[in-house]
Amino acid sequence: MQQVKVFLNEDEIPRQWYNINADLPLQNPLLEPPDKKIATPEFLGAIFAGNLLEQSVSTERWIDIPEEILELIYRWRPSPLKRAVYLEKALGTPAKIYYKDESVSPPGSHKPNTAVPQAWYSKQMGITKITTETGAGQWGSALAFACSLVGIECKVYMVRISFDQKPFRKIMMRTWGANCIASPSNETKAGRDILAKDPDTPGSLGIAISEAIEETLADKSGKTKYALGSVLPHVLLHQTIIGLEAKKQLEKINVKKVDVVIGCAGGGSNFAGLAFPYVYDKMNGADIKIIPVEPTACPTMTRGPFAYDYGDTSEIAPIAPMHTLGHTFVPPPIHAGGLRYHGMAPQVSQAIIEGLLDPLALHQSECYEAALMFAKTEGLIIAPETSHAVAAVIQEAKKAREEGKEKVILFNLSGHGLMDLAGYQNYLDGKLKDYSLSDEELKKYLESIKDMPIPIGA
Amino acid sequence: MQQVKVFLNEDEIPRQWYNINADLPLQNPLLEPPDKKIATPEFLGAIFAGNLLEQSVSTERWIDIPEEILELIYRWRPSPLKRAVYLEKALGTPAKIYYKDESVSPPGSHKPNTAVPQAWYSKQMGITKITTETGAGQWGSALAFACSLVGIECKVYMVRISFDQKPFRKIMMRTWGANCIASPSNETKAGRDILAKDPDTPGSLGIAISEAIEETLADKSGKTKYALGSVLPHVLLHQTIIGLEAKKQLEKINVKKVDVVIGCAGGGSNFAGLAFPYVYDKMNGADIKIIPVEPTACPTMTRGPFAYDYGDTSEIAPIAPMHTLGHTFVPPPIHAGGLRYHGMAPQVSQAIIEGLLDPLALHQSECYEAALMFAKTEGLIIAPETSHAVAAVIQEAKKAREEGKEKVILFNLSGHGLMDLAGYQNYLDGKLKDYSLSDEELKKYLESIKDMPIPIGA
Repeated sequence: MQQVKVFLNEDEIPRQWYNINADLPLQNPLLEPPDKKIATPEFLGAIFAGNLLEQSVSTERWIDIPEEILELIYRWRPSPLKRAVYLEKALGTPAKIYYKDESVSPPGSHKPNTAVPQAWYSKQMGITKITTETGAGQWGSALAFACSLVGIECKVYMVRISFDQKPFRKIMMRTWGANCIASPSNETKAGRDILAKDPDTPGSLGIAISEAIEETLADKSGKTKYALGSVLPHVLLHQTIIGLEAKKQLEKINVKKVDVVIGCAGGGSNFAGLAFPYVYDKMNGADIKIIPVEPTACPTMTRGPFAYDYGDTSEIAPIAPMHTLGHTFVPPPIHAGGLRYHGMAPQVSQAIIEGLLDPLALHQSECYEAALMFAKTEGLIIAPETSHAVAAVIQEAKKAREEGKEKVILFNLSGHGLMDLAGYQNYLDGKLKDYSLSDEELKKYLESIKDMPIPIGA
Repeated sequence: MQQVKVFLNEDEIPRQWYNINADLPLQNPLLEPPDKKIATPEFLGAIFAGNLLEQSVSTERWIDIPEEILELIYRWRPSPLKRAVYLEKALGTPAKIYYKDESVSPPGSHKPNTAVPQAWYSKQMGITKITTETGAGQWGSALAFACSLVGIECKVYMVRISFDQKPFRKIMMRTWGANCIASPSNETKAGRDILAKDPDTPGSLGIAISEAIEETLADKSGKTKYALGSVLPHVLLHQTIIGLEAKKQLEKINVKKVDVVIGCAGGGSNFAGLAFPYVYDKMNGADIKIIPVEPTACPTMTRGPFAYDYGDTSEIAPIAPMHTLGHTFVPPPIHAGGLRYHGMAPQVSQAIIEGLLDPLALHQSECYEAALMFAKTEGLIIAPETSHAVAAVIQEAKKAREEGKEKVILFNLSGHGLMDLAGYQNYLDGKLKDYSLSDEELKKYLESIKDMPIPIGA
């Protein structure tokens, strides 16, 4: 009998998040548009909940998880740690492959790990409504779920083309009681201006962010705030419960050493959630290879410089120090919607500069091939984002086979792909296209940040 | 800290299925169309795998689960037992509500509990291909998954209207390597005949069954067999792992007595899977209320007589003794596709005759209201079929509140609703219709079985 799943009971859940601010030399504060001066608490506090902002600048290494948040996340946490024995067999590798299965949350991904705390902390501040944007809908549905549990209003601006093409995500949000509308909408000036110029626009994440923030700023009572699903330090902090649980689970089955840690990275939150507790070990001398995986079509970490850039395309969000392709970057239409972001979380970017990570870029065809292999061996149909992690796992497992080494590989299964099956169909029909960014295109996009201050370490 | 999830490790999984044939007075054999004589092993063996047929007539109370099947189902089993504390709170009930979460399987329902054993046993017989039909796609995707794990070919005839309207289920099947085609098709005589008459037919489950069986019978090597996802005794047998796990899990947390057991029932397999181990206790004196729940629109158990009837509409499948509305019954377009079957498993039907069960029929609007409440309290978006169980749970929990009794209610969460969200949308838009069957309609449908032999006990 081989054990393929390791559970933790509720009373074994980690009771603190790991805050990498305590250990990384993060010396570049957020800046404020349009003047690019250091962002004031007033500017940030008008957009985000104050207690979350405090968390994002805290330098305490361990931050207590409030008991009430634990009660809320017990619905699906601790998540199982699984061993991919059937994938190992199919690859003929001596490597042992473990993964955290974050697809078990009701919305189907890791996103609720931060959506629930953000909703809970917001409610503590007397906030009654949270606005956000969503592209493919993973984040929007996670926030709708969280707001439903906490009892707070939720308004989601969903990029129109996704709103029309992915009706099911929208129904999920409505089922959890959220108000999900297509962006651009007539509810904001930003939306109306765009619609006046181009009534048939497909919308964009940049416009949706503008609308969500405009609605937040318009509520002068301060009871409406905006929530972000990745990139910012408090978001990554909340996700570290993934890696902390993994450590406890591996300890339970006497796995003493992890050799390789892998996660896909768009804004960086699911990757950081699993990896940062291991980055901590690495900073303290452990020999671990830690790989964030991105699409070749959107090579933020592998080809983007470390620079100050806007978080959004419309130049109203805070300016952050990060690996970036430039905020005018237009991502090719790859299926992994969650990996089509021009920037990378400042903390992940700093860890790259420190030489702690080995970023990897992969084409989506290799990733779908890996996802098919995973479905036919392990059984789970994974999200297109997650397939990037699995493709890298397969590379590492093959390497271990060639080297004859019994390595331990750990990755994050960030979500299932049941709401995003169109990519599988294209792959199976042989219609999938791969995309690379030319040097000329990259140069053009980077023009958009040429007047930015230079961050320390760049 | 309240424990809301109870896990079992792999080594705690039940190692035998419970076979209710040993305890129920099942005296009516299957009959063979068109002559209505007792079905011969040759007739049944041409359609179904021989070792599965043996299981379906075995009278051994406990049947060993082969080690290889356990290894295959460890991917998602044992499934968690959860306590619905948030639903309890919202209802203000003293009842304790527990449920088996069968949505954790890769295809998202209880169906793989039998799909995997059926694929495995078939392979043991040297069978190289399994055919089946599917309506909404739950069963087809579960069998595709199972065949992929076992390494056997899978051909699914999917009712055309679902094939066109539910492209995602079809992609799931293809991802697991199955060949899923729209029925009626040009690949069988049955399909071609229908298409010649009506090229634009939406298809039906009856036609799809005919095509799947025709393909099976056409392979004279005997290496192609047909698989069924519900109704038959071996199917219900495989599902009893649900109830047997639940017993172990409740024991772990010192719950000594279950007062009410609830499951939705279409063909009867998920209900029987949870309930039969408790029916056994009831036959041995335990005081338990056991409720199979069906749609008012398809009131097989509450209004259909116990009679011999065809398993399919096209009169080629075996004739079984069951509660039935008549095989010409045309179910109204309710969203719970899995509950739109005219008959009920013979074993469940017999248990009703024995007075062991308290069947209940509910309208879908009440069920969707319950599903919304479940989503907003427990977080999970359940399948439209499962919502029938949850609506009955809410009725029982309210009764416990009125009686001031701390009852233990256990139900089967048979699947998630992420692939069937259209019903939620209709409910939220106020467009959901309820349907009742008039006495005249029922009488008309029952005309179709007036020449059938009368089963013992009717």
